[in-house]
Amino acid sequence: MLPNTMQAAVVRDFGKPLNMEEVEVKRPGRNQILVKVVASGVCHTDLHAIDGDWPVKPKMPLIPGHEAVGFVAAVGEGVNNVKEGDAVGVPWLYSACGCCDHCITGWETLCETQQNGGYSVDGGFAEYVLADARYVGHLASNTNFIEMAPILCAGVTVYKGLKETETKPGEWVAISGIGGLGHVAVQYAKAMGMHVAAIDIADDKLALAKRLGADITVNAKENDPGTFLQKEIGGAHGALITAVSPIAFKQGIEVLRRKGTIALNGLPPGSFDLPIFETVLKRITVRGSIVGTRKDLQEAIEFANEGKVKANVTTAKLSEVNTVLDQLKKGQVEGRIVFDMTN
Amino acid sequence: MLPNTMQAAVVRDFGKPLNMEEVEVKRPGRNQILVKVVASGVCHTDLHAIDGDWPVKPKMPLIPGHEAVGFVAAVGEGVNNVKEGDAVGVPWLYSACGCCDHCITGWETLCETQQNGGYSVDGGFAEYVLADARYVGHLASNTNFIEMAPILCAGVTVYKGLKETETKPGEWVAISGIGGLGHVAVQYAKAMGMHVAAIDIADDKLALAKRLGADITVNAKENDPGTFLQKEIGGAHGALITAVSPIAFKQGIEVLRRKGTIALNGLPPGSFDLPIFETVLKRITVRGSIVGTRKDLQEAIEFANEGKVKANVTTAKLSEVNTVLDQLKKGQVEGRIVFDMTN
Amino acid sequence: MLPNTMQAAVVRDFGKPLNMEEVEVKRPGRNQILVKVVASGVCHTDLHAIDGDWPVKPKMPLIPGHEAVGFVAAVGEGVNNVKEGDAVGVPWLYSACGCCDHCITGWETLCETQQNGGYSVDGGFAEYVLADARYVGHLASNTNFIEMAPILCAGVTVYKGLKETETKPGEWVAISGIGGLGHVAVQYAKAMGMHVAAIDIADDKLALAKRLGADITVNAKENDPGTFLQKEIGGAHGALITAVSPIAFKQGIEVLRRKGTIALNGLPPGSFDLPIFETVLKRITVRGSIVGTRKDLQEAIEFANEGKVKANVTTAKLSEVNTVLDQLKKGQVEGRIVFDMTN
Amino acid sequence: MLPNTMQAAVVRDFGKPLNMEEVEVKRPGRNQILVKVVASGVCHTDLHAIDGDWPVKPKMPLIPGHEAVGFVAAVGEGVNNVKEGDAVGVPWLYSACGCCDHCITGWETLCETQQNGGYSVDGGFAEYVLADARYVGHLASNTNFIEMAPILCAGVTVYKGLKETETKPGEWVAISGIGGLGHVAVQYAKAMGMHVAAIDIADDKLALAKRLGADITVNAKENDPGTFLQKEIGGAHGALITAVSPIAFKQGIEVLRRKGTIALNGLPPGSFDLPIFETVLKRITVRGSIVGTRKDLQEAIEFANEGKVKANVTTAKLSEVNTVLDQLKKGQVEGRIVFDMTN
Repeated sequence: MLPNTMQAAVVRDFGKPLNMEEVEVKRPGRNQILVKVVASGVCHTDLHAIDGDWPVKPKMPLIPGHEAVGFVAAVGEGVNNVKEGDAVGVPWLYSACGCCDHCITGWETLCETQQNGGYSVDGGFAEYVLADARYVGHLASNTNFIEMAPILCAGVTVYKGLKETETKPGEWVAISGIGGLGHVAVQYAKAMGMHVAAIDIADDKLALAKRLGADITVNAKENDPGTFLQKEIGGAHGALITAVSPIAFKQGIEVLRRKGTIALNGLPPGSFDLPIFETVLKRITVRGSIVGTRKDLQEAIEFANEGKVKANVTTAKLSEVNTVLDQLKKGQVEGRIVFDMTN
Repeated sequence: MLPNTMQAAVVRDFGKPLNMEEVEVKRPGRNQILVKVVASGVCHTDLHAIDGDWPVKPKMPLIPGHEAVGFVAAVGEGVNNVKEGDAVGVPWLYSACGCCDHCITGWETLCETQQNGGYSVDGGFAEYVLADARYVGHLASNTNFIEMAPILCAGVTVYKGLKETETKPGEWVAISGIGGLGHVAVQYAKAMGMHVAAIDIADDKLALAKRLGADITVNAKENDPGTFLQKEIGGAHGALITAVSPIAFKQGIEVLRRKGTIALNGLPPGSFDLPIFETVLKRITVRGSIVGTRKDLQEAIEFANEGKVKANVTTAKLSEVNTVLDQLKKGQVEGRIVFDMTN
Repeated sequence: MLPNTMQAAVVRDFGKPLNMEEVEVKRPGRNQILVKVVASGVCHTDLHAIDGDWPVKPKMPLIPGHEAVGFVAAVGEGVNNVKEGDAVGVPWLYSACGCCDHCITGWETLCETQQNGGYSVDGGFAEYVLADARYVGHLASNTNFIEMAPILCAGVTVYKGLKETETKPGEWVAISGIGGLGHVAVQYAKAMGMHVAAIDIADDKLALAKRLGADITVNAKENDPGTFLQKEIGGAHGALITAVSPIAFKQGIEVLRRKGTIALNGLPPGSFDLPIFETVLKRITVRGSIVGTRKDLQEAIEFANEGKVKANVTTAKLSEVNTVLDQLKKGQVEGRIVFDMTN
Repeated sequence: MLPNTMQAAVVRDFGKPLNMEEVEVKRPGRNQILVKVVASGVCHTDLHAIDGDWPVKPKMPLIPGHEAVGFVAAVGEGVNNVKEGDAVGVPWLYSACGCCDHCITGWETLCETQQNGGYSVDGGFAEYVLADARYVGHLASNTNFIEMAPILCAGVTVYKGLKETETKPGEWVAISGIGGLGHVAVQYAKAMGMHVAAIDIADDKLALAKRLGADITVNAKENDPGTFLQKEIGGAHGALITAVSPIAFKQGIEVLRRKGTIALNGLPPGSFDLPIFETVLKRITVRGSIVGTRKDLQEAIEFANEGKVKANVTTAKLSEVNTVLDQLKKGQVEGRIVFDMTN
């Protein structure tokens, strides 16, 4: 039987610590399911939701979290693609209209009336979370939930970003930033048959990249990535910028060979300097990329399920949420943190 | 019989007026042809060649010009794809290596050892011009040479730029700047089945765009193009920026619908401000585009040959070259100027 | 107020004449709308439904018809993309699951649990028809309904088929069979910027193709299409086979230039002889194509709405349904027949 | 110093045994190089050349062979992309015109005036072979020549064929026939990130496929491949038919999921039965594929060079040529046979 209340981490004021509260467990409406959360990942975007520092504000009060994975505990009317007991994940793309030009062409990530988990609707920092059955990720029943959680956002984001670079098997992709996103990106790129050049400013991150399969690494503090990679590999066919900073963007353009594509995987405020002469003469393509579609998500999950991609994960208790977010803000997190809801 | 000398407009010092000189008519070497010039278009790039203000400098002394059209007057060794008397055009992409990754994949415009007509080799401001037979455009014998000349650069440049926006028949392309390039772009876009939104700041240019088939026009002095086109057409699928200025670039991004592509068709110095949030959230693609390949050129010529595209042309005598260039520099040229070499 | 009963043409036994009956007007359920039919086109597929000669049988009793256009008369629960009074069209692709790999990638035409109008559910040979609101075509309120009806199936089918040939603006497509589908295909191809070679065995059909914009025509009784088109245009980049017969298929392969694509737009029983040597050496692509997605349909409607495509239509009364079907079976129909439900 | 004569295996009459002869070592002409052969692979196509059973006949007398690898021994005029001592491979696509629509778009494999090694010009069953420098494959100097030889034809053929199936990393490709081509195809597919379903009728071949990375295997004598793979993996996204036989083609169509693509990699006489209903309803794409372009070849070589692909090779002496060809004709060859020219 479903409980009537549950523990959840709730934002009541932007920028303030979250409260652990006993809140109602809502019942699934039409097309919805209720998911018993087993593990729930923490993402940089959660900080933006909590601080309310993006142009469009989240709902308030808010339960953050968009990397929840668990089992279907209850099924609403009209649901026919999952059933009680199925293992699923509840992503950032919580639901979309299903009828706009983007939705009907497999680009629901661009739907202008999409809902976002842990932002415009309550998310996964809780024992249960509601989801739209049509937009969840489908997991194997024997999934390692702790390791799978970050795939729901970090995984699908870099997987889609890599696709958007249009790098083909056998070609070179440069991955800039080997943090929470980048170390997952290296593994996807290798599983997709690409050659990987990893760029970071920390030798331990580059050593990690090497262990995960990177073919070449550049410490951007010691070598100019553009000069180095043009010389060593003739430039990269694609570049994925996971840490979207002005310097990473500039370097990303410079490491490309002619006809290369750079994909941007982050949402800092502001703008970049796009050099016109190089962009035109070298036929550079610059492209933004945000999370991924249901199809991208399913593919990203399958790579992880086969063991080809595995996020570097540290677990915490949900009650430690404020400490965890503080560490994330201070850049003290290695890989990804996941709330283990089973203890 | 070929003459030994010819009249040509020659640059002897960067930034100085050209001299009309009697120079040697060279004989075609291996893979080369000599072309008797019938008409020769003038392009903004000629100003850069004459002023030597690009990072890579042209040969010196230099005969500028990369829109020469005429008849094959002599054929060198090893030439087997054209013969004496054939009508041809000699483009900016004068020759390429034929063996690099770009050349063998139909992207010779990106060849790092390419030669450029009227820049790294002598061009078409002369009675005769040498060409590499493997890289010339092939014309119908009854071509209107005066009207065809600008297709060799302005035409193929915007045609390729439009292809690079990936706008499909029935979709909307915004064309920013209805000058020498833009008024040709409107016609190509219509011939390719696109809907056209023309953007300029001069009402007479917009009236011209309308006559050439534009479906909607925006005077950017009176209406913000982004606001206007988002409201009227839901945003454009593609945008072609013919006058690459910071304001045109900014507007070009803003007129796009989600998943839109903006192609840049110009080579000003400096850089653009690329807004990160919009680029990522709306999955915008920004792409540089320069001239076109041999295949693009042949296709661009065929559209013109069928009468679907026709540059707005004013003729002049080659001896008026300095006056013409002066007018071009001052922005006093409507459409394109072509030297009529038959009088 | 909605009536409780309506006139409909009903199949009660495969292969038998339809009965005009007074049947119940059903009320729209969840996600459904009820459409007051203004015009309803007749398609060859209706014959297959009525005769029950395809492997999968239609529902029984059955109201056929999948080219119904009209106004929304009533709206069911959960519908938010159309409202009472909107003009819509009810296509063959009546509904799909929305969640399978095909549905989430914009290929709902391949959904294995799709419903089909006038086949697995009742269709448009009636005064009213139920539809799934998420799958209808959206029409302008001032649509010419009689002319628009055939776009709902014939139009979208050939439009999609042309896209599937991958012929680009400026390239050549051969259209084989200038009947009900083919004469619409010629117009779409021209509106998409293609060059059109029309193939038929009747001079009046070829004359029609010429009037509709075909650039070249071949009477296959007088000239071998392959030999003729290889000589005249160097072969076609694409070929659309609207009348899928073994001889049309063979000719379709032969008219292609190397790297060409042939799309098949019909569903006869049996198989074709695919010549291996030519297919491999010339890198021929053969592709089946059936109706079109919601996006294809919307685009096909827009071309028609702008007056660029117009089906050659004859009207009839619904009570003449058996005569009409008889004529269709005997091949006595020019263009398309549409039931005018307003008289 | 170059010798004046060399040992070569020469065809003097179609269908007759080859003669080992002492023939002239020709000097490289313009754009040509002379290659000292280190290893030379044997291909089924050599049998067709020797028997003269294809519609277009080879030159006569003929030195067969189009998988020769070795070192550049002499360089003709105009060659600037290779130099004496470089390691190269001489492929089936011996040269092409460089100027036709196919050549200028990176599809020189479709050039109508191409020359073919060991067919229209002398090939690699000899101590030296002439090559067009612009069309050779470029090898690392420390290449294992024996293992690399089959990559020049078998390798590039299946690599290109796999690309032509449009199977993406993470998707399923079915490879039909695990012989000389198929066992190489399995390795390319895995290196490109695909899931592989191997189909054959011999258990030892399927065991080999497993060892080389196949994810699933089907013995077509025991299980119907279509039924089996639809059940086990939901059908394959792509299928590569290396042994082009009517039964393999039929099965290849049946193993595909909807929207799948089947690529044909062989040149038997005759034709296939293409089932219309399935092709149209399932939107199947059928595509011929022959060898690969220079870019494909370079990529195929790089995969092999990195050790990701390795042909199963048996060596022989050139003097054993008739025995070897006899075994090949009788289907007694495991993997590929390569003449080791160093002993």
